[in-house]
Amino acid sequence: MTAETAVLRDDLVSEMNDLGRAARAAAAELAMAGPEQRNDALQAAAEALRDQSDKIIAANAVDMSAAEAKGLSAAMLDRLLLDSDRVEAMALGLEAIADFPDPLGRVLEERSRPNGLQIAKIAVPLGVIGIIYESRPNVTADAGGLCLKSGNAAILRGGSESANSSGAILECLQAGLRKAGLPEAALQRLPTTDRAAVGIMLTMSEDIDLIVPRGGRGLIERVQQESRIPVMAHLDGLCHTYIHGDADKEMATEIAVNAKMRRTGICGATETLLVDRSAVESHLPDVLKALVSAGCEIRGDETVQAMEIGTSVKEAVAQDWDTEYLDSIISVKVVDGLDDAVSHINQHGSHHTEAIVTEDQTAAQAFLNRVDAAIVMHNASTQYADGGEFGMGAEIGISTGKLHARGPVGADQLTSYKYLVRGRGQVRP
Amino acid sequence: MTAETAVLRDDLVSEMNDLGRAARAAAAELAMAGPEQRNDALQAAAEALRDQSDKIIAANAVDMSAAEAKGLSAAMLDRLLLDSDRVEAMALGLEAIADFPDPLGRVLEERSRPNGLQIAKIAVPLGVIGIIYESRPNVTADAGGLCLKSGNAAILRGGSESANSSGAILECLQAGLRKAGLPEAALQRLPTTDRAAVGIMLTMSEDIDLIVPRGGRGLIERVQQESRIPVMAHLDGLCHTYIHGDADKEMATEIAVNAKMRRTGICGATETLLVDRSAVESHLPDVLKALVSAGCEIRGDETVQAMEIGTSVKEAVAQDWDTEYLDSIISVKVVDGLDDAVSHINQHGSHHTEAIVTEDQTAAQAFLNRVDAAIVMHNASTQYADGGEFGMGAEIGISTGKLHARGPVGADQLTSYKYLVRGRGQVRP
Repeated sequence: MTAETAVLRDDLVSEMNDLGRAARAAAAELAMAGPEQRNDALQAAAEALRDQSDKIIAANAVDMSAAEAKGLSAAMLDRLLLDSDRVEAMALGLEAIADFPDPLGRVLEERSRPNGLQIAKIAVPLGVIGIIYESRPNVTADAGGLCLKSGNAAILRGGSESANSSGAILECLQAGLRKAGLPEAALQRLPTTDRAAVGIMLTMSEDIDLIVPRGGRGLIERVQQESRIPVMAHLDGLCHTYIHGDADKEMATEIAVNAKMRRTGICGATETLLVDRSAVESHLPDVLKALVSAGCEIRGDETVQAMEIGTSVKEAVAQDWDTEYLDSIISVKVVDGLDDAVSHINQHGSHHTEAIVTEDQTAAQAFLNRVDAAIVMHNASTQYADGGEFGMGAEIGISTGKLHARGPVGADQLTSYKYLVRGRGQVRP
Repeated sequence: MTAETAVLRDDLVSEMNDLGRAARAAAAELAMAGPEQRNDALQAAAEALRDQSDKIIAANAVDMSAAEAKGLSAAMLDRLLLDSDRVEAMALGLEAIADFPDPLGRVLEERSRPNGLQIAKIAVPLGVIGIIYESRPNVTADAGGLCLKSGNAAILRGGSESANSSGAILECLQAGLRKAGLPEAALQRLPTTDRAAVGIMLTMSEDIDLIVPRGGRGLIERVQQESRIPVMAHLDGLCHTYIHGDADKEMATEIAVNAKMRRTGICGATETLLVDRSAVESHLPDVLKALVSAGCEIRGDETVQAMEIGTSVKEAVAQDWDTEYLDSIISVKVVDGLDDAVSHINQHGSHHTEAIVTEDQTAAQAFLNRVDAAIVMHNASTQYADGGEFGMGAEIGISTGKLHARGPVGADQLTSYKYLVRGRGQVRP
């Protein structure tokens, strides 16, 4: 490090510490605000998004042209793009969050003890949440809105390619906070998209209570490695669908095509199809043909490559079993029974969402019990892995770790609790 | 590091990795074992403790004479001591854990979606839990038993002073596992009490899912600083009792004496008494006199030192407000109203257990809302901070963090969950 960069880094550390302290103070204020005030801020933010729609789209245009110049893929560019419909969708999303029941103050348990003590377990905010995410700028509104709803301050770190768009969206959220008389510092973002700022953020355990990283294995591992703060990982989905020997063929075909092809870019999309050896002759040709006619590229093991399905099947190499394509590509592997399927999934999956298709209830139950994932499905498409589809409302994402919250993370999951004990002078014998 | 210590360290790393992999494999087996098998292991371990009582007491005698030679305090020696009653208490504790309802497989939520998907949220084990604790050897039985009950493998690291006692107890737990046909590696301890082994343990994120440190601020901070694994901190209790201006004097006196003096060595003992300025003349003399006659040393601020209570009051220095005495000593401070009390507690407390004594319901509710602690009490002794007193059965301790579990941590709190989704071929539109 040169003397000059060391000075710059000291400046950044000091700026980050100010930001952390401001977030901590804002969190204390937010925790005491009533549900009306938090919901007013969400409503006002939605209005601001609509008012500032043109400005947000103009900021997005700057990000888009930089991204095009950098040669980002069409899929990435689509993730980044904002138009008036997408801005309106963000505004509607904030209004929907405002309409949820209040996640705070919920009585999670209540008990009366023989000695007369009344014990209540009450939902409270976590405090300050740091959220690290990649390209989609709408996460700024969704994640910020959920933190605000649950009484938490948030420090956001979006991808550098969406910096202008996210900045414009954040201004609207802060306008909502101001209008509701809440501190602007309740929702902030890092002063720079420089990686060094993330590194500093991950050490700020005094002022940040939880880090939520959303993204691929590289990002998650870096964060878990560096963070001095508890991490709730949202790893991308490397999801499997397993066609058991007793699967209904038509159902298996429909589920496989939907699980892979409905939307290829979401984390609940199936990336690897496992087919039981006993279903290879009976089921696999139809399943593969349906995937191919839906426009999917097949990468298979030797058995799959040898199938005659009217098109050639590429070879799946070792790396394919660990690849989240997020594209119209699927890897297909023949497995020797349920044990083999479960063992492949527990080794290669991202503990996100896994499915079995079978008419055999015993096999289904064994799969549900033994697969180690946030969501395990029987006879359903992995694309249902979504807080909205679960009836939980908006979500920050699907937590793939086992601590605190697992599966869809909405406003309720961004809370902790405390025990309130009410007595009339009891002392312990 | 010399070449020789480097080799020794490599050996230790390799031994620790073997231990971690064995724990991971045992956890997978344990997760599939039914409740009867886990309870059989607990019952058999209780029997083994009774059978081996003499051997355990002999091992404890070795620890005791080393501790006496080291000059440990009488309080520390008492924590370390095992006699036949205490061994019997451990056996009864394991039997009580066996009698609890099964924490696994509990249906935490169930919902049926409009599209016919059935969604169930089911309790599952966390996996492998590393537990780091200090002197009391009985923690080996309690913590090991709770992990086994909840289907988790455990890696235990007790204090070096109790190494022989803990080893003898662990052998009984492992005998129970063997007898029930479960893998011995489900409960292991570090091969050495060398601090280096703890350092290695804290990096084993592949094989350990959660670290539970129980102890003082130094231990907790070291673990939080070094750990690459999520930490559920059990910080010692720096608990306060606040006598509000509208407190009933007799109740305030009884609670203060009980909260401090019933047992001074437990984490729920009050260490600092806050007295509202408006209660100084009316309440404080009686409260202080009662504490003194119960054998308590008083350390006070200027106002408290000036009180005439028939004995001299020592000066409380800055450090006293951050000291957990675990002894017959209390620091006493006069505060200017509820705001001042809450602010002192949120700054100096360990987020464990805090109490207010008052007849004013509004003041009580404000205190319950604004104090940031796992347990907040109104008109009750802080000594009630205990899983058993909460009706939750045995506990590993009181979690002082906000992530995953807060407050008493029993078998239920050592679980995660997964969502099971059952369909009949649904695909997402």
